[in-house]
Amino acid sequence: MAPTTTVPIGTLPSGSVTGRLASVYSEVQKTRVDHALPLPSVLKHPFTILDGPPSSAAGNPDEIAKLFPHLFGQPSAALAPSGAVQTQKKLKIGVVLSGGQAPGGHNVISGIFDYLQERAPGSTLYGFKGGPAGIMKCKYVELTSEYIYPYRNQGGFDMICSGRDKIETPEQFKQAEETAKKLDLDGLVVIGGDDSNTNACLLAENFRSKNLKTSVIGCPKTIDGDLKCKEVPTSFGFDTACKIYSEMIGNVMIDARSTGKYYHFVRLMGRAASHITLECALQTHPNITIIGEEVAAKKLTLKNVTDYIVDVVCKRAEINYNYGVILIPEGLIDFIPEVQHLIAELNEILAHDTVDEGGLWKKKLTDQSLKLFDFLPQAIQEQLMLERDPHGNVQVAKIETEKMLIQMVETELEKRKQEGKYNGEFKGQSHFFGYEGRCGLPTNFDATYCYALGYGAGALLHSGKTGLISSVANLCAPVEEWTVGGTALTSLMDVERRHGTHFHL
Amino acid sequence: MAPTTTVPIGTLPSGSVTGRLASVYSEVQKTRVDHALPLPSVLKHPFTILDGPPSSAAGNPDEIAKLFPHLFGQPSAALAPSGAVQTQKKLKIGVVLSGGQAPGGHNVISGIFDYLQERAPGSTLYGFKGGPAGIMKCKYVELTSEYIYPYRNQGGFDMICSGRDKIETPEQFKQAEETAKKLDLDGLVVIGGDDSNTNACLLAENFRSKNLKTSVIGCPKTIDGDLKCKEVPTSFGFDTACKIYSEMIGNVMIDARSTGKYYHFVRLMGRAASHITLECALQTHPNITIIGEEVAAKKLTLKNVTDYIVDVVCKRAEINYNYGVILIPEGLIDFIPEVQHLIAELNEILAHDTVDEGGLWKKKLTDQSLKLFDFLPQAIQEQLMLERDPHGNVQVAKIETEKMLIQMVETELEKRKQEGKYNGEFKGQSHFFGYEGRCGLPTNFDATYCYALGYGAGALLHSGKTGLISSVANLCAPVEEWTVGGTALTSLMDVERRHGTHFHL
Repeated sequence: MAPTTTVPIGTLPSGSVTGRLASVYSEVQKTRVDHALPLPSVLKHPFTILDGPPSSAAGNPDEIAKLFPHLFGQPSAALAPSGAVQTQKKLKIGVVLSGGQAPGGHNVISGIFDYLQERAPGSTLYGFKGGPAGIMKCKYVELTSEYIYPYRNQGGFDMICSGRDKIETPEQFKQAEETAKKLDLDGLVVIGGDDSNTNACLLAENFRSKNLKTSVIGCPKTIDGDLKCKEVPTSFGFDTACKIYSEMIGNVMIDARSTGKYYHFVRLMGRAASHITLECALQTHPNITIIGEEVAAKKLTLKNVTDYIVDVVCKRAEINYNYGVILIPEGLIDFIPEVQHLIAELNEILAHDTVDEGGLWKKKLTDQSLKLFDFLPQAIQEQLMLERDPHGNVQVAKIETEKMLIQMVETELEKRKQEGKYNGEFKGQSHFFGYEGRCGLPTNFDATYCYALGYGAGALLHSGKTGLISSVANLCAPVEEWTVGGTALTSLMDVERRHGTHFHL
Repeated sequence: MAPTTTVPIGTLPSGSVTGRLASVYSEVQKTRVDHALPLPSVLKHPFTILDGPPSSAAGNPDEIAKLFPHLFGQPSAALAPSGAVQTQKKLKIGVVLSGGQAPGGHNVISGIFDYLQERAPGSTLYGFKGGPAGIMKCKYVELTSEYIYPYRNQGGFDMICSGRDKIETPEQFKQAEETAKKLDLDGLVVIGGDDSNTNACLLAENFRSKNLKTSVIGCPKTIDGDLKCKEVPTSFGFDTACKIYSEMIGNVMIDARSTGKYYHFVRLMGRAASHITLECALQTHPNITIIGEEVAAKKLTLKNVTDYIVDVVCKRAEINYNYGVILIPEGLIDFIPEVQHLIAELNEILAHDTVDEGGLWKKKLTDQSLKLFDFLPQAIQEQLMLERDPHGNVQVAKIETEKMLIQMVETELEKRKQEGKYNGEFKGQSHFFGYEGRCGLPTNFDATYCYALGYGAGALLHSGKTGLISSVANLCAPVEEWTVGGTALTSLMDVERRHGTHFHL
């Protein structure tokens, strides 16, 4: 491995966006393509890989050990400076983007590519197209410096596109094996969220069990910010998404203050976790923030949440403030125990029974759930009965929680007005900030973090590691001091029993 | 008037945001506060005011002349360089923000203030709070350099807030007169859209008819971009709003391309005009753009619009593109003649009759309107029956046209699929980009344009002009070469007969 001290990112092919892209890129996009990225110090010099102690699992180690007999217990790895020069072995590597977009994905690919160019010249990088389906169908493109260049520091996953397919059946594993053999892959980088990294680990186990040489390394991606642990302090995209949403929230807050007559209910992306909502609240200081995890921990009901909002609205009305901004996480109603019960019962009923127009099906609900169902605004009742997701579940993401809350707050305020306890004016405006944040231009942090994740993934594959997730940490320090390594995916796993038995990151 | 060649904007009180604002401002906001603004050359040196020829009206001059006997026919004014030095007369000026927010409003106020500081030292600037109601109630704040400073180049109208009240009854004019007398106002600047500038002209006429010394000057504000003519080439806020929306649309386009499975239907602010939609389309090149004015000119039906979208979706499906982005102006359905008829009939029925649950009221609709009403998705039918605005009209802005179109496109595609004419997958995602764009940080253009509008308004008032709208033009040239003047508001007026008889800008 040839040691280098600088990374000539953006100087290939010639330092300027040409051809088709030159005409469609905005000035900002053009400027960002050539934005130089710093690398952690350990990646700028010759390094060696230090193995840690044997690992276990986040929970239920016996069961995880049975599921991953070839990988369980393997150590995590850390990069450390070294005077030794590594072999100049050429590699054939594949990369795939899995699941929803997150700003920075293109930079992970740039990082892998630049690692191979710098440290394993003559290597080949294949990009599988359209997500894991691209692996199974062996649909790929060979990534060259010309191909990658216009996507450097750009948002989106459109370089090779993404998809949500999973490689999980024996037949699908067989297809993946055939692709690995056909392309003679030394390694595969799976860029994805917790689902995709769980899948990456299965793939690593499978390849290892078949004695294939193909290693698999994961990369932590999700704007939701819920893929994190000590070794993986954040998933990429979270920083950019929160900045985009916070700017929009800030604009709406100024709007609210300027007009003085609207309460803006802003639903923010993040179904399983309220991290985006919390981070945006810290950045913008809205009047009210509902955090799903807090609602769940306190076992609040929908009525409790409504009353909390109404209390604040009434207090503000007393000082003539009839406006404000309220942040709500996308998955809020999924965090409310009584709603979870209702949804579970509905899932059960809708899976096994027909829903009659007369409403006889409702008799199958428990008293508590029936009461809640009837308490919900009609539009929400209808949304709960909407089409299911592929797993047959209620599509919580489709429920416009912000509109539901506005209706409930209106009803409660009307009641208090009649009781003489409220004398203000209430007008709700609903917003959903979601897709706008998934494909924005990556922030400097996400751009740099992703580049290091990719560069580090290249280093792990070069060392023959498998079943690890690329881990860049010490992120509060200057980039120079960031640590780089790989965490054993099995060490992050647990068995989840909420809906049947699954193992999961 | 003391000639100056530089404008010390941002150097008062001390060049940095201090106190409370320092802790709540983002880095970008802080940087923008001190952003230096160039002035048109004619405003940097001593100038004189040149009157143009007598003016008429945009239409129906006889009627406009009767409505504005003291102002009709007055010339527009242009600033021109001059060696003469104007009197150092001290002025008392009021300023009011009227209607919806538009980025740059604070800079108009900064421009007026700086003009007074530079050219009429010792003058006083009052900001009326909460829109025209502030004038009527004499609710104001004296604007000092300390007060204004943190709002320079910032979005929102929160410096003095805005409101939608109108000064139109004899009693309200009386209140305005009392305020003008009480504060001994030499002039008033009304920053607003077409409604507000029409109102400003009425106020100017009224003050003049009562022999009050208070002049009134308007400033063209609206993100919708529909307040424009030869002399007023654009309203402020349009540039910023379109840039904000275009960035969001760009993100969604990259998202669409990355995932490959959604059609994003984006409704954009702009009820009476589709200018925002058109400008955003020019900036982003979406797959489909619907322009309301075009729909009206071609007398298209909702079915026509649906078919147009469906045709494109089908053609793209043939080459396996099952995704895209479609821009729709907020006021689309108001531009469709058959919908206008339906809404007019509904307005009439709802104003005079009770709506029975059995649907007997529907018999009062014409056949064509009944057919259209039944063709609409149920949710839209319900929205059409929703609460009225203060004028008793259907609130078109509340109709989620993008969702309506998604449902109609789905239905039509299903039909074509059954006929074997379509074989793709269609998933619609709806968006409304509105409030986020009204209070963003003004672009350099809007910041500079607004500052010149305000500075120019100060000059017009200093010269005793009334009933003019501040006009900064030649905007394609460098700022140095921008022209500055005032256009007679009556010259822009016409009588509108669509809903009864009104006169309007």
